Amino acid sequence: MKNYFSIQDIDSLPDWVSEARQLKGSPTSQKQLGVGKTLCLLFFNNSLRTRLSTQKAAMNLGMEVMVMNFGNEGWALEYGDGTVMDQGTSEHIKEAAQVVSQYCDIVAIRAFAGLKDKAKDEAEEVLNGFISYASVSVVNMESSIGHPLQALADAITLAEHQGPNRETDSQENKTDDKPGKSEQGQQSGARRKPKIVLSWAPHPKALPHAVANSFVEMMRRQDAEFVITHPKGYELNPEITGDVPIEYNQKKACENADFVYAKNWSSYSDYGKVLHQNSDWMMTQEKLGAAKFMHCLPVRRNVVVEDAVLDSGQSLVIEQANNRTYAAQVVLKKLLENMR
Amino acid sequence: MKNYFSIQDIDSLPDWVSEARQLKGSPTSQKQLGVGKTLCLLFFNNSLRTRLSTQKAAMNLGMEVMVMNFGNEGWALEYGDGTVMDQGTSEHIKEAAQVVSQYCDIVAIRAFAGLKDKAKDEAEEVLNGFISYASVSVVNMESSIGHPLQALADAITLAEHQGPNRETDSQENKTDDKPGKSEQGQQSGARRKPKIVLSWAPHPKALPHAVANSFVEMMRRQDAEFVITHPKGYELNPEITGDVPIEYNQKKACENADFVYAKNWSSYSDYGKVLHQNSDWMMTQEKLGAAKFMHCLPVRRNVVVEDAVLDSGQSLVIEQANNRTYAAQVVLKKLLENMR
Amino acid sequence: MKNYFSIQDIDSLPDWVSEARQLKGSPTSQKQLGVGKTLCLLFFNNSLRTRLSTQKAAMNLGMEVMVMNFGNEGWALEYGDGTVMDQGTSEHIKEAAQVVSQYCDIVAIRAFAGLKDKAKDEAEEVLNGFISYASVSVVNMESSIGHPLQALADAITLAEHQGPNRETDSQENKTDDKPGKSEQGQQSGARRKPKIVLSWAPHPKALPHAVANSFVEMMRRQDAEFVITHPKGYELNPEITGDVPIEYNQKKACENADFVYAKNWSSYSDYGKVLHQNSDWMMTQEKLGAAKFMHCLPVRRNVVVEDAVLDSGQSLVIEQANNRTYAAQVVLKKLLENMR
Repeated sequence: MKNYFSIQDIDSLPDWVSEARQLKGSPTSQKQLGVGKTLCLLFFNNSLRTRLSTQKAAMNLGMEVMVMNFGNEGWALEYGDGTVMDQGTSEHIKEAAQVVSQYCDIVAIRAFAGLKDKAKDEAEEVLNGFISYASVSVVNMESSIGHPLQALADAITLAEHQGPNRETDSQENKTDDKPGKSEQGQQSGARRKPKIVLSWAPHPKALPHAVANSFVEMMRRQDAEFVITHPKGYELNPEITGDVPIEYNQKKACENADFVYAKNWSSYSDYGKVLHQNSDWMMTQEKLGAAKFMHCLPVRRNVVVEDAVLDSGQSLVIEQANNRTYAAQVVLKKLLENMR
Repeated sequence: MKNYFSIQDIDSLPDWVSEARQLKGSPTSQKQLGVGKTLCLLFFNNSLRTRLSTQKAAMNLGMEVMVMNFGNEGWALEYGDGTVMDQGTSEHIKEAAQVVSQYCDIVAIRAFAGLKDKAKDEAEEVLNGFISYASVSVVNMESSIGHPLQALADAITLAEHQGPNRETDSQENKTDDKPGKSEQGQQSGARRKPKIVLSWAPHPKALPHAVANSFVEMMRRQDAEFVITHPKGYELNPEITGDVPIEYNQKKACENADFVYAKNWSSYSDYGKVLHQNSDWMMTQEKLGAAKFMHCLPVRRNVVVEDAVLDSGQSLVIEQANNRTYAAQVVLKKLLENMR
Repeated sequence: MKNYFSIQDIDSLPDWVSEARQLKGSPTSQKQLGVGKTLCLLFFNNSLRTRLSTQKAAMNLGMEVMVMNFGNEGWALEYGDGTVMDQGTSEHIKEAAQVVSQYCDIVAIRAFAGLKDKAKDEAEEVLNGFISYASVSVVNMESSIGHPLQALADAITLAEHQGPNRETDSQENKTDDKPGKSEQGQQSGARRKPKIVLSWAPHPKALPHAVANSFVEMMRRQDAEFVITHPKGYELNPEITGDVPIEYNQKKACENADFVYAKNWSSYSDYGKVLHQNSDWMMTQEKLGAAKFMHCLPVRRNVVVEDAVLDSGQSLVIEQANNRTYAAQVVLKKLLENMR
């Protein structure tokens, strides 16, 4: 693995989840691995969890960290080939990526979708620009179309709560050096697959699809009963959802669920638009039933989900945020190991 | 001590001052104490001294530091219970505080008074929000109503210049393992109590009461002749000033003073208002007499105090700023010791 | 050397270049030198290369680093003597410089020219203010009139590509402990002096003279055939260019050049003005011939220089940026050595 751009860069999800959980148990056990190595975090957008957890992960591995808010501390970047740069952009991605590569060993980047121009967003010009021209590894800290550090943290959280990765803890693995197996068909005994629901939720602003996309990609590699529910018009990119069933009746989708992941996103077909607020899609204790509740945060209380859910023992949102550290740490560890 | 929220969290002021002075003499003597521990600094407002001195203090103790400007790097926080978050705020303090706690061992926060709404400011929603929901220790880097790191630095500075804490250096203590005693009645021999004046000063903008409040709270625990002077209408919160004498004649208040601390604050009764500029309240060499001059900085020259005072040997302002490092360091040291 | 303010602070350019190249070969060989020392970076303007490379250099030397964007994180500074500070400035440079000095061992500062007022820019109030009042060493990370870290990186790059410092690699030096000699008369055998051209280039915005000035100052200490070319009206400060020949015909100036350094600057005589865009002054492959191409970056492609040049093997711009780390590192090393 040269870069961590998407969930597709994970060779074995159960192995990575298992390794992350080992790091969680002993966060500084690999403190020597990153000594003398530098991580550079470049933010083109705001960040709380990603900013702090990725720094923390790097420090746990002994790395040095440089943080830069590219937008207001650096120069406006140009991405076009052959552009006559006589307008607002001061520096081309070709130079920026090569230059930054010389000051660090890994560069991690956050650059959200603009939600104005689908083709432009899907070109992922910031992340792909860095990947094309950087000479060091690139980590995606949320791009236009994916948030694979979040989805990996979500996989860790699911595994901890006996979701689809629970097999990594199973007895048979304890006699096995490798902390995971193939990603399919690892159900122990007659235990049924967990039912996991990704539910669209209302939100006053147009939000990107990145979190939902990466969660779907991650879930498609899990042995679970996975359902997406949203109002008509909010279908995600069908190339990402593939054959995942879509249930337009939220209540029905949530029936007998083990985990419900709520998240708002704007329309994909009517790109970047908020079609309606649909406040009746807010996640409630009633709809949730006995399921565990998940969200990537930040979450708007009583819009996306009611207080009663977040304040109950069924909410996993704080643990998901905690697992961001170990998701980042396993990614950085893999990249550092590749450098040896 | 779980948190350092106010001067009231100091169990023994002489002990802390003495310990801070020991750290000043040998700043990295406790370099092992913070190894593997992380301090997160969250700024909701601008900062120079606090930003740098608190980082420096943490590094002196071997801690790792993450700095975040919450306002423009993170998400707008909501503090209200039960709010339907469909307006400007994106994340609730309940989540933010719990999440940040997972990435660090101590969180230090700066959040100034808005000076629009007394009840809201006095509720200290940012600091109290973090204290309520964080699972780690919280340090106040200036809140709406207090600036206890500044007041502790001021106490150190007073002690260095033979103010009320001078007893910690006295001969009798040298035979004593404990570096301080009770806070009262420690005058050596017939020496008179130092006279210390807190004087209001003019300023073009409305400023918070935090520095003045914490200085008063700190002084009320000292064995000194303490007087506050200000124009009528600028009375501080009477719950904080208590029985401290107020002298409305500045010149008379400063007579025979050993230390004069100048500081502007806006009206408390006519909350947050600048009643008048009163340029005749600027501190001058003439009013100061032989007293030492103190101010927390930043200071507006020739508005709050004339150049002649700041440029004289009587000014302690640079040393006060220096002692910010050791005030922060003793606070962090106490919190780290509590974690063992 | 107390401060690194300009190229004039370099005692022996060949020695420094040689030392920088040694550090480049073994960046962490002096990792103990900076342990327990702190570098504070203060940015009054944007920065990418300087921000990251200077941090990296400090970390290579074992130093701790604090970074602050003074403009939006701190307080507006006053520089005037005797000012009644009742307007927009909150803190005087006298206090700020003394205070910051107490939290670090070296302070590095970036403060660009405003290009409105020549006398004010040439007074270098920010850098000179810190130099006057700071008790620690000050490093110039680009001031109104100079960018000596860039010029030192340029000297390293020239030396690596057999420019005027090539003698430091010559056989006779290998038997010599000192890694350089006098700055003049070191031509080996009959080899001709390299021809180096500083060429003005078009740019849509008014840019400062700092990079050009420091490059000229550096070149005047080199044993090279050095020519400046620009349209009439773009003459640099004659006190800086001195007797360096100016050729107004760009094509003629570039004939048989070994190195061409392109850079835009605004008019000096009609201070800070863009006189015209002169797109025919863009550097092209044709004008460049067989010469190496240099630029400090960020560079506007197809305005300052055509893609074909930047994308060719003749471009040294990425290596110049790389050498920023070692330029900063040799400066910090010299300052740290002086502290012992």
